[in-house]
Amino acid sequence: MDLKTLIREVPDFPKEGILFYDITTILQNPEGLKASIDQIQVKLEGIEFDYIVGPESRGFIFGVPVAYNTGKGFLPIRKAGKLPYKTKSKEYALEYGTATIEMHIDAIKPGDKVVIIDDLLATGGTSKATVELIESLGGEVVKLVYLIELDFLKGRDKLKNYDVDSIIHG
Amino acid sequence: MDLKTLIREVPDFPKEGILFYDITTILQNPEGLKASIDQIQVKLEGIEFDYIVGPESRGFIFGVPVAYNTGKGFLPIRKAGKLPYKTKSKEYALEYGTATIEMHIDAIKPGDKVVIIDDLLATGGTSKATVELIESLGGEVVKLVYLIELDFLKGRDKLKNYDVDSIIHG
Repeated sequence: MDLKTLIREVPDFPKEGILFYDITTILQNPEGLKASIDQIQVKLEGIEFDYIVGPESRGFIFGVPVAYNTGKGFLPIRKAGKLPYKTKSKEYALEYGTATIEMHIDAIKPGDKVVIIDDLLATGGTSKATVELIESLGGEVVKLVYLIELDFLKGRDKLKNYDVDSIIHG
Repeated sequence: MDLKTLIREVPDFPKEGILFYDITTILQNPEGLKASIDQIQVKLEGIEFDYIVGPESRGFIFGVPVAYNTGKGFLPIRKAGKLPYKTKSKEYALEYGTATIEMHIDAIKPGDKVVIIDDLLATGGTSKATVELIESLGGEVVKLVYLIELDFLKGRDKLKNYDVDSIIHG
């Protein structure tokens, strides 16, 4: 199934000049939802890992079903202040200002192998911060899989030493 | 599997006097993750429906795998400003101030039967707003399933005319 045909392109969101790839039109289509999860999962064949990590909130959408199907645990990464227990934080730069992401300090044990699943690889800033947060807890990032990669933003260049895969290229 | 034993109770989160039920300890346990999704799904046996609706962001965690497993589409409800296409909004009262949730205006067609899945039924304020938003688009809410219901907050009283089910009672 060509998932790209199910994406709705929304011009000027979240701001003027940005063409936003709306994935809700994939999710509301039962075949689209199934294919998006299955096609991500295929990318993990032959990879040994302990956990799926998914960043809030669209990483939850694709990460949890893959964790379920592969019999692994799921570790959420959330924006600052959302996780209730003790956390480790990572601040990173945005176009304007900064953002902070967090994981529970006991989510990962040193040596755990994790796969990161998210909907979008754009500039790679969030992904790089996610990798650094996992590594600061002793985890090893063995693979990153995205539903969509915006090739022209060269996010992959920030993840040079990692195994990065995407389903749809925009 | 008794999922309650996998919950981590965090006192004084998000503010003093609140005992928070942390579900990340369920999700990181592969058997816990599988059981939480399977036990929600069992509650849908015999129910006819077209879509799973999940409110941002923990509704995504449980809603999408159930949509995948049952071969249905998934419709996200998000906080104001997050959905890229034309939306319908619903404002509702919080303890202090208000919150607004949104759905895409073309997510639901009149007569569509939907199941709402979320992690927590507390006071029921968010759930009632979710139901009203779905109904304002012409949808019919045929069932609501929660992983956790805080019985002492009587959220169920706000959903009297609906089929409400929960896995864990706290």
